Amino acid sequence: MERYPVRFVSLGPGDPDLITLAAYKALQKCDLIYYPTTISPSGKTLSRAEDIMLTHGINTAKFRPYTLPMRKDRTKALEVYEEVASRCKADYRAGLSVVVAAEGDAGFYSSTHYISDILLGQECPFIYIAGVPAFIAASAVGGLSITRQDEELQIIPGNATTKKLQEAMAQERTVLIMKLSRCESIVKEFLTKEDVAAMYFEHVGTADEFITSRIIEDIMPRRFPYFSMLWLKPKRQ
Amino acid sequence: MERYPVRFVSLGPGDPDLITLAAYKALQKCDLIYYPTTISPSGKTLSRAEDIMLTHGINTAKFRPYTLPMRKDRTKALEVYEEVASRCKADYRAGLSVVVAAEGDAGFYSSTHYISDILLGQECPFIYIAGVPAFIAASAVGGLSITRQDEELQIIPGNATTKKLQEAMAQERTVLIMKLSRCESIVKEFLTKEDVAAMYFEHVGTADEFITSRIIEDIMPRRFPYFSMLWLKPKRQ
Repeated sequence: MERYPVRFVSLGPGDPDLITLAAYKALQKCDLIYYPTTISPSGKTLSRAEDIMLTHGINTAKFRPYTLPMRKDRTKALEVYEEVASRCKADYRAGLSVVVAAEGDAGFYSSTHYISDILLGQECPFIYIAGVPAFIAASAVGGLSITRQDEELQIIPGNATTKKLQEAMAQERTVLIMKLSRCESIVKEFLTKEDVAAMYFEHVGTADEFITSRIIEDIMPRRFPYFSMLWLKPKRQ
Repeated sequence: MERYPVRFVSLGPGDPDLITLAAYKALQKCDLIYYPTTISPSGKTLSRAEDIMLTHGINTAKFRPYTLPMRKDRTKALEVYEEVASRCKADYRAGLSVVVAAEGDAGFYSSTHYISDILLGQECPFIYIAGVPAFIAASAVGGLSITRQDEELQIIPGNATTKKLQEAMAQERTVLIMKLSRCESIVKEFLTKEDVAAMYFEHVGTADEFITSRIIEDIMPRRFPYFSMLWLKPKRQ
Protein backbone atom coordinates (compact mmCIF):
# COMPACT_ATOMS: atom_id res chain seq x y z
CA MET A 1 0.00 0.00 0.00
CA GLU A 2 1.23 3.48 -0.86
CA ARG A 3 1.67 5.76 2.12
CA TYR A 4 1.99 9.54 2.33
CA PRO A 5 3.92 11.53 4.93
CA VAL A 6 1.69 13.77 7.04
CA ARG A 7 2.04 17.36 5.77
CA PHE A 8 2.16 20.34 8.13
CA VAL A 9 0.86 23.05 5.85
CA SER A 10 1.26 26.80 6.49
CA LEU A 11 -1.84 28.80 5.52
CA GLY A 12 -0.26 32.24 5.84
CA PRO A 13 -1.18 35.00 8.28
CA GLY A 14 -4.87 35.64 7.52
CA ASP A 15 -5.10 37.29 4.10
CA PRO A 16 -6.16 34.25 2.02
CA ASP A 17 -3.95 35.32 -0.92
CA LEU A 18 -0.83 35.10 1.26
CA ILE A 19 -1.02 31.31 1.10
CA THR A 20 1.74 29.76 -1.06
CA LEU A 21 1.02 27.81 -4.22
CA ALA A 22 2.60 24.76 -2.51
CA ALA A 23 0.15 25.00 0.40
CA TYR A 24 -2.80 25.62 -1.89
CA LYS A 25 -1.95 22.52 -3.94
CA ALA A 26 -1.48 20.42 -0.79
CA LEU A 27 -4.95 21.39 0.45
CA GLN A 28 -6.45 20.43 -2.88
CA LYS A 29 -4.60 17.14 -3.22
CA CYS A 30 -5.17 15.48 0.11
CA ASP A 31 -7.79 13.30 1.76
CA LEU A 32 -8.16 14.94 5.17
CA ILE A 33 -7.32 18.30 6.76
CA TYR A 34 -6.92 18.72 10.53
CA TYR A 35 -7.10 22.34 11.75
CA PRO A 36 -7.76 24.22 15.00
CA THR A 37 -10.95 25.97 16.04
CA THR A 38 -11.80 27.81 19.25
CA ILE A 39 -15.13 28.52 20.90
CA SER A 40 -15.81 32.17 21.72
CA PRO A 41 -17.36 33.15 25.11
CA SER A 42 -20.69 33.52 23.29
CA GLY A 43 -20.43 29.95 21.99
CA LYS A 44 -19.49 30.74 18.40
CA THR A 45 -16.93 28.52 16.67
CA LEU A 46 -13.99 30.55 15.35
CA SER A 47 -11.28 29.40 12.97
CA ARG A 48 -9.10 31.61 10.81
CA ALA A 49 -7.69 28.45 9.25
CA GLU A 50 -11.19 27.41 8.16
CA ASP A 51 -11.95 30.90 6.84
CA ILE A 52 -8.84 30.79 4.63
CA MET A 53 -9.70 27.33 3.29
CA LEU A 54 -13.32 28.27 2.61
CA THR A 55 -12.16 31.30 0.60
CA HIS A 56 -10.17 28.95 -1.59
CA GLY A 57 -13.09 26.60 -2.10
CA ILE A 58 -11.40 23.59 -0.46
CA ASN A 59 -13.81 20.65 -0.28
CA THR A 60 -15.40 20.79 3.18
CA ALA A 61 -15.83 17.00 3.21
CA LYS A 62 -12.09 16.84 4.01
CA PHE A 63 -12.40 19.17 7.02
CA ARG A 64 -11.44 17.64 10.36
CA PRO A 65 -11.57 20.54 12.88
CA TYR A 66 -10.22 20.05 16.38
CA THR A 67 -11.22 22.35 19.22
CA LEU A 68 -8.52 23.94 21.35
CA PRO A 69 -9.59 25.08 24.81
CA MET A 70 -8.57 28.69 25.54
CA ARG A 71 -7.33 28.18 29.08
CA LYS A 72 -4.07 29.05 30.81
CA ASP A 73 -3.82 25.44 31.95
CA ARG A 74 -2.55 23.63 28.84
CA THR A 75 -3.35 20.09 30.03
CA LYS A 76 -6.54 19.81 28.00
CA ALA A 77 -4.89 21.32 24.90
CA LEU A 78 -2.07 18.77 25.10
CA GLU A 79 -4.67 16.00 25.22
CA VAL A 80 -6.22 17.40 22.05
CA TYR A 81 -2.83 17.40 20.28
CA GLU A 82 -2.26 13.78 21.40
CA GLU A 83 -5.62 12.84 19.94
CA VAL A 84 -4.89 14.59 16.59
CA ALA A 85 -1.46 12.95 16.36
CA SER A 86 -3.01 9.57 17.03
CA ARG A 87 -5.61 10.12 14.29
CA CYS A 88 -2.89 11.31 11.85
CA LYS A 89 -0.89 8.17 12.52
CA ALA A 90 -3.92 5.93 11.97
CA ASP A 91 -4.74 7.77 8.72
CA TYR A 92 -1.12 7.43 7.58
CA ARG A 93 -1.15 3.70 8.20
CA ALA A 94 -4.44 3.44 6.30
CA GLY A 95 -2.79 5.04 3.24
CA LEU A 96 -4.59 8.38 3.52
CA SER A 97 -2.97 11.67 2.54
CA VAL A 98 -3.26 13.92 5.59
CA VAL A 99 -2.71 17.67 6.08
CA VAL A 100 -2.35 19.44 9.43
CA ALA A 101 -3.06 23.10 8.67
CA ALA A 102 -1.60 26.00 10.65
CA GLU A 103 -2.02 29.76 10.38
CA GLY A 104 1.10 31.78 9.57
CA ASP A 105 4.12 29.51 9.26
CA ALA A 106 3.77 26.03 10.78
CA GLY A 107 7.32 26.09 12.21
CA PHE A 108 7.39 29.62 13.62
CA TYR A 109 5.76 29.85 17.08
CA SER A 110 3.10 27.43 15.91
CA SER A 111 1.50 25.02 18.32
CA THR A 112 1.38 22.30 15.65
CA HIS A 113 4.88 21.30 16.82
CA TYR A 114 3.11 19.47 19.66
CA ILE A 115 1.64 17.19 17.00
CA SER A 116 4.84 16.72 14.97
CA ASP A 117 6.83 16.03 18.17
CA ILE A 118 4.52 13.13 18.96
CA LEU A 119 4.71 11.76 15.40
CA LEU A 120 8.52 11.92 15.56
CA GLY A 121 8.53 9.26 18.25
CA GLN A 122 5.98 7.06 16.50
CA GLU A 123 7.49 6.15 13.14
CA CYS A 124 5.06 8.36 11.26
CA PRO A 125 6.94 10.48 8.69
CA PHE A 126 5.97 14.11 8.14
CA ILE A 127 7.05 17.16 6.16
CA TYR A 128 6.58 20.91 6.62
CA ILE A 129 5.42 23.29 3.90
CA ALA A 130 6.69 26.82 4.66
CA GLY A 131 4.49 29.90 4.74
CA VAL A 132 4.40 33.63 5.45
CA PRO A 133 4.71 34.35 9.20
CA ALA A 134 2.44 37.04 10.64
CA PHE A 135 5.31 39.42 11.43
CA ILE A 136 6.44 39.41 7.80
CA ALA A 137 2.90 40.16 6.62
CA ALA A 138 2.53 42.93 9.19
CA SER A 139 5.77 44.61 8.09
CA ALA A 140 4.64 44.51 4.48
CA VAL A 141 1.26 46.08 5.29
CA GLY A 142 3.09 48.77 7.27
CA GLY A 143 5.40 49.48 4.32
CA LEU A 144 8.30 48.64 6.60
CA SER A 145 11.64 47.05 5.69
CA ILE A 146 11.85 45.16 8.96
CA THR A 147 15.60 44.49 8.72
CA ARG A 148 18.38 45.86 6.53
CA GLN A 149 22.03 45.03 5.83
CA ASP A 150 23.84 44.23 9.09
CA GLU A 151 20.93 44.90 11.44
CA GLU A 152 20.17 42.16 13.91
CA LEU A 153 16.62 41.25 14.84
CA GLN A 154 15.49 39.93 18.22
CA ILE A 155 12.02 38.42 18.35
CA ILE A 156 10.39 38.33 21.78
CA PRO A 157 7.12 36.37 22.10
CA GLY A 158 5.34 38.26 24.87
CA ASN A 159 7.90 37.76 27.63
CA ALA A 160 9.58 41.16 27.27
CA THR A 161 11.33 42.65 30.27
CA THR A 162 12.77 46.15 30.70
CA LYS A 163 16.28 44.65 30.90
CA LYS A 164 15.88 42.70 27.64
CA LEU A 165 14.64 45.76 25.80
CA GLN A 166 17.36 48.02 27.22
CA GLU A 167 20.09 45.55 26.29
CA ALA A 168 18.77 45.12 22.77
CA MET A 169 18.63 48.88 22.17
CA ALA A 170 22.11 49.36 23.68
CA GLN A 171 23.45 46.77 21.26
CA GLU A 172 21.55 48.31 18.34
CA ARG A 173 19.38 45.27 17.72
CA THR A 174 15.99 45.78 16.15
CA VAL A 175 13.28 44.17 18.32
CA LEU A 176 9.94 42.67 17.47
CA ILE A 177 7.62 41.90 20.38
CA MET A 178 4.70 39.60 19.64
CA LYS A 179 1.72 38.73 21.88
CA LEU A 180 1.90 42.22 23.33
CA SER A 181 -1.01 41.76 25.72
CA ARG A 182 1.31 39.66 27.88
CA CYS A 183 3.71 42.53 28.58
CA GLU A 184 1.60 45.67 28.10
CA SER A 185 2.70 47.62 31.19
CA ILE A 186 6.41 46.86 30.67
CA VAL A 187 6.28 47.95 27.05
CA LYS A 188 4.35 51.14 27.80
CA GLU A 189 6.73 52.12 30.56
CA PHE A 190 9.67 51.49 28.23
CA LEU A 191 8.14 53.62 25.47
CA THR A 192 7.60 56.47 27.93
CA LYS A 193 11.18 56.48 29.15
CA GLU A 194 13.27 55.60 26.12
CA ASP A 195 13.73 57.47 22.87
CA VAL A 196 13.15 54.75 20.25
CA ALA A 197 11.53 54.42 16.84
CA ALA A 198 8.44 52.18 17.01
CA MET A 199 5.73 50.78 14.82
CA TYR A 200 2.66 49.11 16.33
CA PHE A 201 0.53 46.48 14.58
CA GLU A 202 -2.88 45.23 15.70
CA HIS A 203 -5.08 42.56 14.08
CA VAL A 204 -3.16 42.75 10.80
CA GLY A 205 -4.99 41.13 7.90
CA THR A 206 -8.43 41.50 9.49
CA ALA A 207 -11.16 44.12 9.33
CA ASP A 208 -9.87 45.53 12.65
CA GLU A 209 -6.37 46.16 11.31
CA PHE A 210 -4.64 49.13 12.95
CA ILE A 211 -1.05 50.26 12.34
CA THR A 212 0.68 53.32 13.69
CA SER A 213 4.08 54.73 14.56
CA ARG A 214 2.75 57.55 16.78
CA ILE A 215 3.82 56.41 20.24
CA ILE A 216 2.25 59.02 22.53
CA GLU A 217 -0.90 59.75 20.52
CA ASP A 218 -1.91 56.29 19.26
CA ILE A 219 0.02 53.52 21.01
CA MET A 220 -0.01 54.60 24.67
CA PRO A 221 -3.81 54.97 25.05
CA ARG A 222 -4.59 51.55 23.54
CA ARG A 223 -5.25 48.34 25.39
CA PHE A 224 -3.02 45.81 23.59
CA PRO A 225 -4.89 42.73 22.34
CA TYR A 226 -3.19 39.32 22.03
CA PHE A 227 -2.82 39.68 18.25
CA SER A 228 -0.67 42.76 18.34
CA MET A 229 3.02 43.35 17.89
CA LEU A 230 5.53 46.13 18.28
CA TRP A 231 8.63 46.82 16.22
CA LEU A 232 11.32 48.81 18.02
CA LYS A 233 14.59 50.24 16.85
CA PRO A 234 17.20 52.44 18.49
CA LYS A 235 17.08 55.98 17.13
CA ARG A 236 20.29 56.75 15.23
CA GLN A 237 22.28 59.50 16.87
CA MET B 1 -5.29 59.07 -15.91
CA GLU B 2 -5.41 56.10 -13.59
CA ARG B 3 -2.18 55.41 -11.70
CA TYR B 4 -0.97 52.32 -9.84
CA PRO B 5 1.33 52.24 -6.82
CA VAL B 6 4.63 50.47 -7.50
CA ARG B 7 4.45 46.97 -6.00
CA PHE B 8 7.45 45.37 -4.24
CA VAL B 9 6.63 41.71 -4.75
CA SER B 10 8.20 38.83 -2.77
CA LEU B 11 8.95 35.79 -4.92
CA GLY B 12 9.77 33.42 -2.07
CA PRO B 13 13.08 31.72 -1.31
CA GLY B 14 13.79 29.77 -4.51
CA ASP B 15 11.30 26.90 -4.72
CA PRO B 16 8.87 28.37 -7.29
CA ASP B 17 5.83 26.95 -5.45
CA LEU B 18 6.70 28.94 -2.33
CA ILE B 19 5.47 32.11 -4.04
CA THR B 20 2.18 33.41 -2.60
CA LEU B 21 -1.02 33.62 -4.63
CA ALA B 22 -0.90 37.41 -4.13
CA ALA B 23 2.57 37.65 -5.66
CA TYR B 24 1.66 35.29 -8.50
CA LYS B 25 -1.38 37.41 -9.36
CA ALA B 26 0.66 40.63 -9.19
CA LEU B 27 3.21 39.24 -11.67
CA GLN B 28 0.42 38.28 -14.04
CA LYS B 29 -1.49 41.55 -13.75
CA CYS B 30 1.20 44.16 -14.29
CA ASP B 31 2.86 45.91 -17.19
CA LEU B 32 6.54 45.75 -16.21
CA ILE B 33 8.69 43.72 -13.80
CA TYR B 34 12.08 44.99 -12.56
CA TYR B 35 14.31 42.30 -11.03
CA PRO B 36 18.00 41.77 -10.24
CA THR B 37 20.51 39.71 -12.19
CA THR B 38 24.21 39.16 -11.59
CA ILE B 39 26.99 38.20 -13.98
CA SER B 40 29.05 35.14 -12.98
CA PRO B 41 32.86 35.20 -13.29
CA SER B 42 32.45 33.15 -16.50
CA GLY B 43 30.14 35.80 -17.95
CA LYS B 44 26.85 33.96 -17.48
CA THR B 45 23.79 35.96 -16.41
CA LEU B 46 22.26 34.56 -13.22
CA SER B 47 18.89 35.41 -11.70
CA ARG B 48 16.91 33.30 -9.27
CA ALA B 49 14.11 35.83 -9.60
CA GLU B 50 13.96 35.24 -13.36
CA ASP B 51 14.07 31.45 -12.89
CA ILE B 52 11.05 31.62 -10.58
CA MET B 53 9.08 33.82 -12.99
CA LEU B 54 9.93 31.63 -16.00
CA THR B 55 8.67 28.55 -14.12
CA HIS B 56 5.35 30.31 -13.69
CA GLY B 57 5.14 31.28 -17.35
CA ILE B 58 5.14 35.03 -16.73
CA ASN B 59 5.22 36.93 -20.03
CA THR B 60 8.88 37.72 -20.72
CA ALA B 61 7.90 40.87 -22.64
CA LYS B 62 7.35 42.45 -19.19
CA PHE B 63 10.84 41.56 -17.96
CA ARG B 64 13.08 44.51 -17.05
CA PRO B 65 16.24 42.96 -15.54
CA TYR B 66 18.79 45.20 -13.86
CA THR B 67 22.36 44.03 -13.28
CA LEU B 68 23.84 44.33 -9.81
CA PRO B 69 27.66 44.42 -9.66
CA MET B 70 29.05 41.90 -7.16
CA ARG B 71 31.68 44.14 -5.57
CA LYS B 72 32.40 45.07 -1.98
CA ASP B 73 32.25 48.72 -2.98
CA ARG B 74 28.52 49.43 -3.17
CA THR B 75 28.77 52.73 -5.08
CA LYS B 76 27.91 51.19 -8.44
CA ALA B 77 25.06 49.13 -6.95
CA LEU B 78 23.55 52.26 -5.41
CA GLU B 79 23.65 53.92 -8.82
CA VAL B 80 21.75 50.96 -10.26
CA TYR B 81 19.05 51.27 -7.55
CA GLU B 82 18.79 55.02 -8.28
CA GLU B 83 18.28 54.23 -11.95
CA VAL B 84 15.58 51.60 -11.24
CA ALA B 85 13.76 53.98 -8.86
CA SER B 86 13.85 56.69 -11.49
CA ARG B 87 12.40 54.34 -14.12
CA CYS B 88 9.68 53.15 -11.68
CA LYS B 89 8.69 56.74 -11.01
CA ALA B 90 8.51 57.55 -14.72
CA ASP B 91 6.41 54.40 -15.34
CA TYR B 92 4.11 55.33 -12.46
CA ARG B 93 3.57 58.80 -13.87
CA ALA B 94 2.84 57.28 -17.28
CA GLY B 95 0.04 55.16 -15.75
CA LEU B 96 1.89 51.84 -15.97
CA SER B 97 1.48 49.09 -13.39
CA VAL B 98 5.00 48.27 -12.15
CA VAL B 99 6.38 45.40 -10.07
CA VAL B 100 9.81 45.32 -8.39
CA ALA B 101 10.45 41.64 -7.71
CA ALA B 102 12.64 40.34 -4.86
CA GLU B 103 13.64 36.85 -3.75
CA GLY B 104 12.53 35.73 -0.30
CA ASP B 105 10.58 38.48 1.42
CA ALA B 106 10.99 41.99 0.01
CA GLY B 107 11.13 43.57 3.48
CA PHE B 108 13.43 41.11 5.23
CA TYR B 109 17.13 41.79 4.53
CA SER B 110 16.21 42.63 0.95
CA SER B 111 18.19 45.20 -0.99
CA THR B 112 15.01 46.44 -2.70
CA HIS B 113 14.62 48.82 0.26
CA TYR B 114 17.18 51.03 -1.52
CA ILE B 115 14.60 51.49 -4.26
CA SER B 116 11.59 52.04 -1.98
CA ASP B 117 13.60 54.52 0.15
CA ILE B 118 14.19 56.65 -2.94
CA LEU B 119 10.52 56.46 -4.00
CA LEU B 120 9.47 57.54 -0.50
CA GLY B 121 11.06 60.93 -1.05
CA GLN B 122 9.67 61.34 -4.55
CA GLU B 123 5.90 61.25 -4.21
CA CYS B 124 5.67 57.85 -5.85
CA PRO B 125 3.39 55.56 -3.81
CA PHE B 126 4.31 51.90 -3.33
CA ILE B 127 3.11 48.81 -1.51
CA TYR B 128 4.80 45.61 -0.33
CA ILE B 129 3.46 42.10 -0.95
CA ALA B 130 4.78 39.72 1.75
CA GLY B 131 6.51 36.43 1.02
CA VAL B 132 8.29 33.46 2.58
CA PRO B 133 11.77 34.44 3.87
CA ALA B 134 14.62 32.00 3.20
CA PHE B 135 15.09 31.12 6.87
CA ILE B 136 11.48 30.01 7.18
CA ALA B 137 11.80 27.81 4.08
CA ALA B 138 15.07 26.34 5.36
CA SER B 139 13.52 25.43 8.72
CA ALA B 140 10.62 23.73 6.97
CA VAL B 141 12.92 21.67 4.73
CA GLY B 142 14.90 20.71 7.85
CA GLY B 143 11.72 19.59 9.61
CA LEU B 144 12.54 22.11 12.30
CA SER B 145 10.16 24.12 14.49
CA ILE B 146 12.45 27.12 14.56
CA THR B 147 10.82 28.74 17.60
CA ARG B 148 8.37 27.52 20.21
CA GLN B 149 6.29 29.02 23.02
CA ASP B 150 8.39 31.56 24.95
CA GLU B 151 11.65 31.06 23.07
CA GLU B 152 13.28 34.22 21.76
CA LEU B 153 14.99 34.30 18.39
CA GLN B 154 18.01 36.46 17.53
CA ILE B 155 18.80 36.78 13.83
CA ILE B 156 22.39 37.73 12.98
CA PRO B 157 23.14 38.57 9.33
CA GLY B 158 26.79 37.49 9.04
CA ASN B 159 28.26 39.79 11.66
CA ALA B 160 28.41 37.23 14.45
CA THR B 161 30.98 37.66 17.20
CA THR B 162 31.93 35.24 19.97
CA LYS B 163 30.54 37.68 22.54
CA LYS B 164 27.16 37.95 20.79
CA LEU B 165 26.82 34.18 20.55
CA GLN B 166 27.88 33.60 24.16
CA GLU B 167 25.43 36.21 25.43
CA ALA B 168 22.57 34.76 23.40
CA MET B 169 23.18 31.23 24.67
CA ALA B 170 23.58 32.47 28.28
CA GLN B 171 20.18 34.15 27.96
CA GLU B 172 18.65 31.07 26.32
CA ARG B 173 17.89 32.80 23.04
CA THR B 174 17.75 30.71 19.91
CA VAL B 175 20.08 32.15 17.26
CA LEU B 176 19.96 32.11 13.49
CA ILE B 177 23.11 33.24 11.68
CA MET B 178 22.70 34.07 7.99
CA LYS B 179 25.43 34.80 5.40
CA LEU B 180 27.72 32.41 7.26
CA SER B 181 30.67 32.90 4.92
CA ARG B 182 31.20 36.28 6.57
CA CYS B 183 31.92 34.78 10.00
CA GLU B 184 33.12 31.25 9.28
CA SER B 185 36.11 31.13 11.63
CA ILE B 186 34.22 32.70 14.55
CA VAL B 187 31.34 30.27 14.18
CA LYS B 188 33.59 27.22 13.87
CA GLU B 189 35.58 28.18 16.93
CA PHE B 190 32.35 28.69 18.85
CA LEU B 191 31.00 25.28 17.80
CA THR B 192 34.25 23.63 18.93
CA LYS B 193 34.16 25.20 22.37
CA GLU B 194 30.49 25.38 23.32
CA ASP B 195 28.01 22.59 23.85
CA VAL B 196 25.05 23.72 21.75
CA ALA B 197 22.42 22.17 19.50
CA ALA B 198 22.89 23.24 15.89
CA MET B 199 21.39 22.77 12.46
CA TYR B 200 23.25 23.88 9.33
CA PHE B 201 21.58 24.83 6.02
CA GLU B 202 23.33 25.33 2.70
CA HIS B 203 21.82 26.33 -0.66
CA VAL B 204 18.30 25.43 0.51
CA GLY B 205 15.80 25.13 -2.33
CA THR B 206 18.46 24.43 -4.97
CA ALA B 207 20.01 21.24 -6.39
CA ASP B 208 22.99 21.75 -4.04
CA GLU B 209 20.83 21.72 -0.90
CA PHE B 210 22.60 20.32 2.15
CA ILE B 211 21.22 20.19 5.69
CA THR B 212 22.78 18.60 8.74
CA SER B 213 22.88 18.75 12.53
CA ARG B 214 26.14 16.78 12.89
CA ILE B 215 28.56 19.48 14.06
CA ILE B 216 31.89 17.65 14.14
CA GLU B 217 31.36 15.28 11.22
CA ASP B 218 29.51 17.46 8.68
CA ILE B 219 29.63 21.14 9.64
CA MET B 220 33.24 21.64 10.75
CA PRO B 221 34.94 20.34 7.58
CA ARG B 222 32.82 22.47 5.22
CA ARG B 223 33.73 25.79 3.69
CA PHE B 224 30.63 27.93 4.33
CA PRO B 225 29.21 29.54 1.18
CA TYR B 226 27.35 32.87 1.29
CA PHE B 227 23.95 31.17 1.01
CA SER B 228 24.24 29.18 4.20
CA MET B 229 22.81 29.60 7.65
CA LEU B 230 23.16 28.10 11.08
CA TRP B 231 20.52 27.62 13.73
CA LEU B 232 21.83 27.43 17.30
CA LYS B 233 20.16 26.71 20.56
CA PRO B 234 21.43 26.25 24.10
CA LYS B 235 21.31 22.59 25.15
CA ARG B 236 18.81 22.17 27.96
CA GLN B 237 20.47 21.08 31.19
